[in-house]
Amino acid sequence: MINGERVIKRPLRWGMVGGGRTANVGYKHRQGALRDNTAFELVAGAFDIDPERGKDFGVNIGVTSERCYPDYKTMFAEEAKREDGIEVVTIATPNGTHYEITKAALESGLHVICEKPLFFEVEQGLEMKALAEKMNKIVGVTYGFSGSQLLLQMRQMVKNGDLGDIHMVELQYTHGFGCDAAGDVKSEGQKWRVDPKVAGPSFVLGDLSTHTFYMSELICPDLKLKQILCDRQSFIGSRYPLEDNAYVLMRYENGAVGRLWTSAVNAGCMDGHRIRIIGSKASVEFSDNQPNELIYQVQGEPIRKMIRSMPYLYDECNADERLGALHAEGLIESWANIYLKFAIAIEAKNNGDEETLKNLVYPDLDAGIEGIRWVTKCVESADKGGVWVDFQEINNQEEII
Amino acid sequence: MINGERVIKRPLRWGMVGGGRTANVGYKHRQGALRDNTAFELVAGAFDIDPERGKDFGVNIGVTSERCYPDYKTMFAEEAKREDGIEVVTIATPNGTHYEITKAALESGLHVICEKPLFFEVEQGLEMKALAEKMNKIVGVTYGFSGSQLLLQMRQMVKNGDLGDIHMVELQYTHGFGCDAAGDVKSEGQKWRVDPKVAGPSFVLGDLSTHTFYMSELICPDLKLKQILCDRQSFIGSRYPLEDNAYVLMRYENGAVGRLWTSAVNAGCMDGHRIRIIGSKASVEFSDNQPNELIYQVQGEPIRKMIRSMPYLYDECNADERLGALHAEGLIESWANIYLKFAIAIEAKNNGDEETLKNLVYPDLDAGIEGIRWVTKCVESADKGGVWVDFQEINNQEEII
Amino acid sequence: MINGERVIKRPLRWGMVGGGRTANVGYKHRQGALRDNTAFELVAGAFDIDPERGKDFGVNIGVTSERCYPDYKTMFAEEAKREDGIEVVTIATPNGTHYEITKAALESGLHVICEKPLFFEVEQGLEMKALAEKMNKIVGVTYGFSGSQLLLQMRQMVKNGDLGDIHMVELQYTHGFGCDAAGDVKSEGQKWRVDPKVAGPSFVLGDLSTHTFYMSELICPDLKLKQILCDRQSFIGSRYPLEDNAYVLMRYENGAVGRLWTSAVNAGCMDGHRIRIIGSKASVEFSDNQPNELIYQVQGEPIRKMIRSMPYLYDECNADERLGALHAEGLIESWANIYLKFAIAIEAKNNGDEETLKNLVYPDLDAGIEGIRWVTKCVESADKGGVWVDFQEINNQEEII
Amino acid sequence: MINGERVIKRPLRWGMVGGGRTANVGYKHRQGALRDNTAFELVAGAFDIDPERGKDFGVNIGVTSERCYPDYKTMFAEEAKREDGIEVVTIATPNGTHYEITKAALESGLHVICEKPLFFEVEQGLEMKALAEKMNKIVGVTYGFSGSQLLLQMRQMVKNGDLGDIHMVELQYTHGFGCDAAGDVKSEGQKWRVDPKVAGPSFVLGDLSTHTFYMSELICPDLKLKQILCDRQSFIGSRYPLEDNAYVLMRYENGAVGRLWTSAVNAGCMDGHRIRIIGSKASVEFSDNQPNELIYQVQGEPIRKMIRSMPYLYDECNADERLGALHAEGLIESWANIYLKFAIAIEAKNNGDEETLKNLVYPDLDAGIEGIRWVTKCVESADKGGVWVDFQEINNQEEII
Repeated sequence: MINGERVIKRPLRWGMVGGGRTANVGYKHRQGALRDNTAFELVAGAFDIDPERGKDFGVNIGVTSERCYPDYKTMFAEEAKREDGIEVVTIATPNGTHYEITKAALESGLHVICEKPLFFEVEQGLEMKALAEKMNKIVGVTYGFSGSQLLLQMRQMVKNGDLGDIHMVELQYTHGFGCDAAGDVKSEGQKWRVDPKVAGPSFVLGDLSTHTFYMSELICPDLKLKQILCDRQSFIGSRYPLEDNAYVLMRYENGAVGRLWTSAVNAGCMDGHRIRIIGSKASVEFSDNQPNELIYQVQGEPIRKMIRSMPYLYDECNADERLGALHAEGLIESWANIYLKFAIAIEAKNNGDEETLKNLVYPDLDAGIEGIRWVTKCVESADKGGVWVDFQEINNQEEII
Repeated sequence: MINGERVIKRPLRWGMVGGGRTANVGYKHRQGALRDNTAFELVAGAFDIDPERGKDFGVNIGVTSERCYPDYKTMFAEEAKREDGIEVVTIATPNGTHYEITKAALESGLHVICEKPLFFEVEQGLEMKALAEKMNKIVGVTYGFSGSQLLLQMRQMVKNGDLGDIHMVELQYTHGFGCDAAGDVKSEGQKWRVDPKVAGPSFVLGDLSTHTFYMSELICPDLKLKQILCDRQSFIGSRYPLEDNAYVLMRYENGAVGRLWTSAVNAGCMDGHRIRIIGSKASVEFSDNQPNELIYQVQGEPIRKMIRSMPYLYDECNADERLGALHAEGLIESWANIYLKFAIAIEAKNNGDEETLKNLVYPDLDAGIEGIRWVTKCVESADKGGVWVDFQEINNQEEII
Repeated sequence: MINGERVIKRPLRWGMVGGGRTANVGYKHRQGALRDNTAFELVAGAFDIDPERGKDFGVNIGVTSERCYPDYKTMFAEEAKREDGIEVVTIATPNGTHYEITKAALESGLHVICEKPLFFEVEQGLEMKALAEKMNKIVGVTYGFSGSQLLLQMRQMVKNGDLGDIHMVELQYTHGFGCDAAGDVKSEGQKWRVDPKVAGPSFVLGDLSTHTFYMSELICPDLKLKQILCDRQSFIGSRYPLEDNAYVLMRYENGAVGRLWTSAVNAGCMDGHRIRIIGSKASVEFSDNQPNELIYQVQGEPIRKMIRSMPYLYDECNADERLGALHAEGLIESWANIYLKFAIAIEAKNNGDEETLKNLVYPDLDAGIEGIRWVTKCVESADKGGVWVDFQEINNQEEII
Repeated sequence: MINGERVIKRPLRWGMVGGGRTANVGYKHRQGALRDNTAFELVAGAFDIDPERGKDFGVNIGVTSERCYPDYKTMFAEEAKREDGIEVVTIATPNGTHYEITKAALESGLHVICEKPLFFEVEQGLEMKALAEKMNKIVGVTYGFSGSQLLLQMRQMVKNGDLGDIHMVELQYTHGFGCDAAGDVKSEGQKWRVDPKVAGPSFVLGDLSTHTFYMSELICPDLKLKQILCDRQSFIGSRYPLEDNAYVLMRYENGAVGRLWTSAVNAGCMDGHRIRIIGSKASVEFSDNQPNELIYQVQGEPIRKMIRSMPYLYDECNADERLGALHAEGLIESWANIYLKFAIAIEAKNNGDEETLKNLVYPDLDAGIEGIRWVTKCVESADKGGVWVDFQEINNQEEII
């Protein structure tokens, strides 16, 4: 159970790139990182593409004026000169800039926490992996929905065989806010997401389903994807070739199968994520509009609703509990859990504590790379007409090289 | 609103093949047909493969002893000799016998009501269609879940544009009662369903998803399937090549897409059918474990739950209402609605009333043939490795002929 | 499990008073009684206060013209002359007529099935009890919601101690259809319910809560009411002194307590009945808008949803099962269960089979009398200003006499 | 919409009494107060009755060692000497100590935020009101569940007449964690709650229902309680005379009525709060286990589920929005909202800005006093045998004096 007492020795000095006044997600990063003021302290930022607005904002959230920088390059350079300079930076900018900023941050000796989807190409991910290893830094990815402790409960149930052999993985992350094409023009947050130059080769596959795919890996670490098939659509035609809806079928190495549906045009849907893991004898289901419960269905027994914080949950789950029974947690607790694990990972990396790093369940650089692979292969399958493609190989040439 | 008063001139004299003491579905047919005793009267039957048990059962449900026959051939022959002989027969036997019994019944001058899946091959369906037309008889198919008036509400909502343009069709009919392989050996009702000789080329695709596919056609009569892709599995290996789980992707002529999931190994699932129709501005969803409500989600508005029998529903829906607000209806009202429509269709057919037949929404022979096509094409796609196949062509030879 | 085969030797010859074309409840009686055509056959009726309309209606539902009578007196007299005359009559008329028709029916040698609330005064109930005993007849009361087998599951759970000691009984039967005062004038079904001359001393207490109170007695047969307190309101002023909303507090002999809320002005409520029984270690809850499930909550364990028809339910529950898993039952199955038990009770009474009568759980005359007492004492408490009154004594004078 | 930018000029210097390592509620105070680090900064504390444990804890959450005090008296004295001493203190200690600490804090010139129930006697509340006015300080009460912006939505719906005239108020705050009597002995958090010397004259009425009663006042500010009636029980006998279950009936000045149920022995219940406000044409319902939605039921229309953050909600509601659609908020956002309003109130009080204070909706000292009155009158009614008592008069003598 988390009660706000320090878990690492002292709070890490933290800066942000992006995440300013007009970016909803920036506030989520801060609420997650600063939950207890014992893991991170926000000391610097290049919050906004508009430097004046960025400085005004930074001061308003408590950053000293001189450490509100006009851009990330200046921040990295200036902070590197300070004794009390930042140790870790969060990158909360549009997708197309993640690669260059991550590279610069690592080269500046910073740990990195980056928004998803990480980059556009698996090769970029592998390059950053080599760089991070060389610099002895971690790169974390903010799959912000993946911090719910009930996902760890699911992971433990799978591990302990409560479901029997895993047969199916049913994934959904859909909403309907993309039904109105006007948002593509009017909304700052939406505009770049449907622009291939900034968003990359996909809209909802990258923006939404990378979360869900990671969550499925977190729950079922032993399932290895063998082949996938993707059919994608652009119901709002102007989004083409970026999809606003996609169906994916999965085949795993062990014979398990799965489905994923991601959409911004599931009109009226307010559910967000739904994850159902089906085993030979039972299933377990999570929906993030009911984030305080799991549905556990053993074939032939009454349907069970398991409630967050109750003693019948596994210790691995309740370790991340904060509020106790009858007290609803929400998305921000998920972010807080992830950021706390980033902090633990950073401290462990600094200390060369590989044992801690090995056992820590959090969205690390490998998870980010798998997310890039996911988007890449889905797009490849869809663009070939909705055919089965092998998941692990990027393309034949690469393999040969 | 239905109140039990006669809708056709007099009750039809009705017989049954199968549906005896050990067959759960037989009771559903009787509860549907005899709901008000004004549409059908049960006067004869060949209820059981065991003639003695069949006669004992028949007498117990009120059929006179001499009209409890040892087999369908005897029944058709003997009843044909009577002035008050049966006019219509229900076939509630395992799949593999539907074709021969339907053929015999039509040749004996009977209207036919047959269990799904109708036959194994589309050609058999087309042959029976020609025969039924020649004999001036109807053949109805008991897609027993399709009689809920809320499906007519959905149909009307689609027709009236309440959802905007239809973009997606999301179909599910799954349960977990097939998780236990022992049922394949022990349960009479299960045993033949996993035997290809009796069940045909599929297990759950035929047994379950034909219902759901028909319901989607009922709701969206203007959507025409263009291509489908099916991946099927036999998680209980002894069922191979019959699947106990299948995923289907659909592409419609107008650009709409869809998915269907059918399974007997969705461990612990007690939901049955879920049907969600997604348009450009709203969605509507039906689940038959909540058979008295529809979820109607207009993007940007509060989620609406529409309750059966309320005046805000379309007249086409409330026409089939029996119980009124706060009074739950269930599956048997669905069967009763279907059987009442069979009776109306039969009377119309007898009277040459083509207008009535044209406007009546019920599972007719064409619906049965489409169901065969559905299973055939799903199996074809799956057996080719999960590839897209055109929905309308059966195979090239046919087309040429 | 019920499959429609005869349970009693032959169907009982049955007549109806009331329940004609304009009476929704009449159709419920017929659907319940005639579910399988093996318990009752409808052979006569005085269906309507308008004799012509009544005859037209009767013929339309299959009663021969000459046995459609202009009034109950004629029916009782004429049927008594026939060898194949009715044996049992259902009284589905407004409350104010129940007493005189019941009396006449019993005196005519008929078994009686009567709508609730039975009569206006406990004394009338006791008088009829003496008369029924003298005539060796049964009087059943159509608490039509009480036939769900899940209530028998709850009864068995209470009996077997699954909940621990019973501490609380939480009852609710509310709707909002009385919010619109216009219904009091326009709706035939509503008009008499708010007229004290026809409805008696209460509106919702009698019309709604007698059902719920009976269901609580069915589930907890060992709880004895000691004192009650009622506060009632007439939110639509023209209904005064009849209440359209009432709160009741209960104290039982064993220290348990309870609450009941009944209302016709719970705006927008579409739930109907909710019954929650709370014990020292667990609770169980039924809601008739989810009539296929029970919520079973053991303190400290996952919440369980128990689904109708599953083998984990008690045999006493599954004995009344008809459709099987995944196949929703509704209100009409409840009516069918009650009518089948009326038939069993009548045959047992005819045969002097007291053992069967003693063990049969159904709404009998005693249940009807307790319902009168319930209304009487609630009204007494409310009219005294909302004070505690003893439940068993009617008034002091009575007791002395 | 709240995004973490400062709302008041600078963070207030804040101290805590109680709320140390073993007190779950202390963490809730901190998570609420420190959400954005722009409203409060935690600089001092007397966190624990065990001074060493308290200091260790304080340092672990970032308070400097010398400002971790052994007791509140020392803290108030020492902090008063500092230029940067605390300006506001939170009292999160057992009930019996609230009065003396509040008094001492006000006398030390501190603003006060105190746990509920505030004190034991209305007179104490009135005395503190006079003192707070004299010292120009605010006293806020942490009705921690009352900060959900959806309650402001309900308030606005009531105010705007969306429900029609308010007829009924249905309140519930129950759980089952008190079913196990062992907790009374073993659990530190539970032990004092059932000890009249520390907890005061009630258990669940004070511990639970004061929250719910305040929430009803927040939603329906114009309803004035006229009379209440309470029946209370001690199902775990050792708790007597403190109740673990209570039923309350309410009568309001305008003819509206209501009910409240509070319990620690509602076995298995995991719902917490349920609040339903019923008007002449519609109802609205909130349940804090579904804290992101309201159920809005207009009689005769589909049931609406309104989702947090959607533009169709009132501005007064969305002003307190933090996360946006599809992103669940939970209890901590409620605490954060309340603490932010405490900060605004304190700044306004310091500035003499009465306009802001008048319009700010938050649990102030008057709300705390009404909560004391609620408990006092409930206990009075129950102890007199469950009779109606007038709500406003405390006792006759008082009134005369």
